[in-house]
Amino acid sequence: DNPLVFIAGPCVIESEESTLAIAVRLAEIAAELNIPLIFKASFDKANRTSLESFRGPGLEEGLAILSRIAATTGLPVTTDIHTAQQAEPAAEVCAILQIPAFLARQTDLVVAAAQATARHGGVVNIKKPQFVAPEDMLHAVKKCEAAGNGRIMLTERGTTFGYGRLVNDMRSVPIMQSLGTPVIYDATHSVQLPGGSTTGGQREMVPPLARAAVAAGCDGLFFETHPDPDRALSDGPNMVPLSEVSQFLGPLLRIREVVTANPPLKS
Amino acid sequence: DNPLVFIAGPCVIESEESTLAIAVRLAEIAAELNIPLIFKASFDKANRTSLESFRGPGLEEGLAILSRIAATTGLPVTTDIHTAQQAEPAAEVCAILQIPAFLARQTDLVVAAAQATARHGGVVNIKKPQFVAPEDMLHAVKKCEAAGNGRIMLTERGTTFGYGRLVNDMRSVPIMQSLGTPVIYDATHSVQLPGGSTTGGQREMVPPLARAAVAAGCDGLFFETHPDPDRALSDGPNMVPLSEVSQFLGPLLRIREVVTANPPLKS
Amino acid sequence: DNPLVFIAGPCVIESEESTLAIAVRLAEIAAELNIPLIFKASFDKANRTSLESFRGPGLEEGLAILSRIAATTGLPVTTDIHTAQQAEPAAEVCAILQIPAFLARQTDLVVAAAQATARHGGVVNIKKPQFVAPEDMLHAVKKCEAAGNGRIMLTERGTTFGYGRLVNDMRSVPIMQSLGTPVIYDATHSVQLPGGSTTGGQREMVPPLARAAVAAGCDGLFFETHPDPDRALSDGPNMVPLSEVSQFLGPLLRIREVVTANPPLKS
Amino acid sequence: DNPLVFIAGPCVIESEESTLAIAVRLAEIAAELNIPLIFKASFDKANRTSLESFRGPGLEEGLAILSRIAATTGLPVTTDIHTAQQAEPAAEVCAILQIPAFLARQTDLVVAAAQATARHGGVVNIKKPQFVAPEDMLHAVKKCEAAGNGRIMLTERGTTFGYGRLVNDMRSVPIMQSLGTPVIYDATHSVQLPGGSTTGGQREMVPPLARAAVAAGCDGLFFETHPDPDRALSDGPNMVPLSEVSQFLGPLLRIREVVTANPPLKS
Repeated sequence: DNPLVFIAGPCVIESEESTLAIAVRLAEIAAELNIPLIFKASFDKANRTSLESFRGPGLEEGLAILSRIAATTGLPVTTDIHTAQQAEPAAEVCAILQIPAFLARQTDLVVAAAQATARHGGVVNIKKPQFVAPEDMLHAVKKCEAAGNGRIMLTERGTTFGYGRLVNDMRSVPIMQSLGTPVIYDATHSVQLPGGSTTGGQREMVPPLARAAVAAGCDGLFFETHPDPDRALSDGPNMVPLSEVSQFLGPLLRIREVVTANPPLKS
Repeated sequence: DNPLVFIAGPCVIESEESTLAIAVRLAEIAAELNIPLIFKASFDKANRTSLESFRGPGLEEGLAILSRIAATTGLPVTTDIHTAQQAEPAAEVCAILQIPAFLARQTDLVVAAAQATARHGGVVNIKKPQFVAPEDMLHAVKKCEAAGNGRIMLTERGTTFGYGRLVNDMRSVPIMQSLGTPVIYDATHSVQLPGGSTTGGQREMVPPLARAAVAAGCDGLFFETHPDPDRALSDGPNMVPLSEVSQFLGPLLRIREVVTANPPLKS
Repeated sequence: DNPLVFIAGPCVIESEESTLAIAVRLAEIAAELNIPLIFKASFDKANRTSLESFRGPGLEEGLAILSRIAATTGLPVTTDIHTAQQAEPAAEVCAILQIPAFLARQTDLVVAAAQATARHGGVVNIKKPQFVAPEDMLHAVKKCEAAGNGRIMLTERGTTFGYGRLVNDMRSVPIMQSLGTPVIYDATHSVQLPGGSTTGGQREMVPPLARAAVAAGCDGLFFETHPDPDRALSDGPNMVPLSEVSQFLGPLLRIREVVTANPPLKS
Repeated sequence: DNPLVFIAGPCVIESEESTLAIAVRLAEIAAELNIPLIFKASFDKANRTSLESFRGPGLEEGLAILSRIAATTGLPVTTDIHTAQQAEPAAEVCAILQIPAFLARQTDLVVAAAQATARHGGVVNIKKPQFVAPEDMLHAVKKCEAAGNGRIMLTERGTTFGYGRLVNDMRSVPIMQSLGTPVIYDATHSVQLPGGSTTGGQREMVPPLARAAVAAGCDGLFFETHPDPDRALSDGPNMVPLSEVSQFLGPLLRIREVVTANPPLKS
């Protein structure tokens, strides 16, 4: 079989205690639903709209927290990196290194992530930039492979659509899969409303779009969750409340069964 | 229960014989799958790229053919109209009158369709123009209601996305439903590639996008089909081969079951 | 020499008196500045957002008013038509028939306009739809020519850019000119903000965008004007106040001199 | 008076000899036309499509070359930086530090550039990302100011418009000026066609778009130039041939005179 993979967690490590609590609950859900789940949290939000915004505990403390969470919960972990120097320490702890969408064209970062994950048996997850067509992710894939790691995921998280809005072209799922990589759908960043003094979001659109992406055939789902999204220190407007995660995932798993049971048409 | 509705047929009436043959096959499929299906064919393609393109048999002959097809197959029928004068004769034959996307802002056409369908117990199906946001379909809905017919469907068929390409923002499904109308997903026009000397299409994208729209919660699916799309006189590049319709519909019905079994989250 | 052409007037004929007053003032300005100016006003706003909006005096009365305005002021006149039947009477009065952007793909309308203007020595001015790439206006040009009138203008009035906003791709000026037609820049509709219960506008953007279009090499400028835009019955938010027209046109004429004095680079 | 500022040079330092030759010619042109001109060349192309593409001489050698070019020609110089560590050495040599569009949301980079230029009396030039609305550049401006440098320029270089294409919304010029900063129009990157194995370009569109931007009121013009663009090691398809620079600039200066002679309308 061919299970849907989940990458989930809060946006940023707000504290070790709160982050661990989320991970423990996600591990329970993963066990109940029998799904593969990788825990995600950022140690640094490097591109906040404002200088005053919360950024996180930083590389060293953040990775230490992620390492302890992995040990405690048994979940593999992932995080995003922003400079080439962060690749090696992050790859020591993380099963997957995530390249942020805005940085996916930065050659040194992609190469460092590919080399570090190759050394540690990890995967590179490159988010499709909002300004790149899905077929053009071929070039990012080639950079990774040439740098020594062919274990690559690509993530759809929306494309610039006029000002202040993203759109998910669901064709990106089969198009990026045709590059030979699994495709993850980022269900919570896709509903961001960029612009203004803080980035807004349409939380109510997460379930229908996530169902749509799974129906379109994506291999995995990324989502951010928080016990109290309206008090989250980053990306609250688009996060799934932790108490609703289980109910959110149910129909996705059943749609996945329909999709995997029906091979593509030949036309 | 709350079944998915289908509107299907060739793009244009090429001949009575060929159009009837398609309708007979679609009626068989509808019976086999136990689905409501409305047969669609155009009597006039009024906005072809080129003067030389085939336009169809015209209003009078076209409606006569549709009327005989309805009688022979037992299927309700629908067609699109382009002038206010066509509304009354078309509403005598058709259960649904379709307003083309480019014409959905033409007040006289919308009003005439609403009045004629009100007289005959029919429905108005307004295609969301490529240049209109889903929430702004409120104004077309209001025009219809004010003209006397509240039985309205809205159809998502893609939004202008740069040059030569449409994108389906799947949020349009819940947004247009929130206006109080059922929403149909037009699976074949959505994959058109407008531009060039004839409009192209991405037939291979119809199944994943149709699955996505059903998963997003649409109430019905519109698609065009032809026994030999590559020889169709209009819209061939995006049509579903008639021989694949049954296989195409199967997973959509199963995804529908998942969607209707899961009420929306409260967040 | 190669003067910039102007098409100007109120959006809609509100009354004969008010429309004539605008025309008289525009004729004075045209004489002062020694510019060719065609007076424009609509007899019917056929695609208003709401059923309640003012639509104008209708075909017969509207054309009679335009005819008297032409006789009184000496200005040639133009109007837009919405059905094929309106082409012949409108071409009897108008030097230019304008095809609305939403209707520019309707074959019967374009053919009727081409035939009627051919009979009366007039010109067809086709507005580039918000959903069409500039190079694809070739097909509208070909339809007109095949129907018997090669005297064609194309008008840039913005392209759909996400929801609720248009963008002027100024490349459309040289691209549409390369089809062999003069290109008019519609300075006031280009700053519309479509969406909401009435279409909004950014009046303050008219002068910089008009200067930009003239600098890009357009052959003419279309703009709507009103003595009191905030009380206009249609399109007020984007109109140029009549008292500012003269000041608005001055720099455009001087930029035109720079453009015509400098032949294109060869690269 | 209020002269138009120019930032010009090759895309990347191909060699010291060739780069100096371009700078010498640009200094001559600047003297002939009596225009302020800052020489630009990159030491590293950090986001090439392919790993195999030429990247440049690197930080140390690149800055040394720029320093000698500044001394030889008397032109101030500018370059783009990609990491926070590069800010201080680059600010020692450059009058302006340019933040690449993809990196304009990276807080550490913007802050480092602001601090380093503040120490050396320089200016930060932030390119508006292809995924950001012009009014949202406010947040980048605030970050710079809060980090200690209020000498900021913003550069318009196009916004994502569907796949594989950028569009210049010329409203961005007055909108970004309303944030209190001068606005530079990047005439050559704006005509890039992103996508495919190498980024393409529409060199023939540079002159009309540059004229349009100057007419819209921009404060300066950025363009890349090369003696033989078709053999350039980066960005050849969109560069202005060095032999045509003088002819390219002439009409821009005359349009500038028209713009500065006409104060904005009050409406």
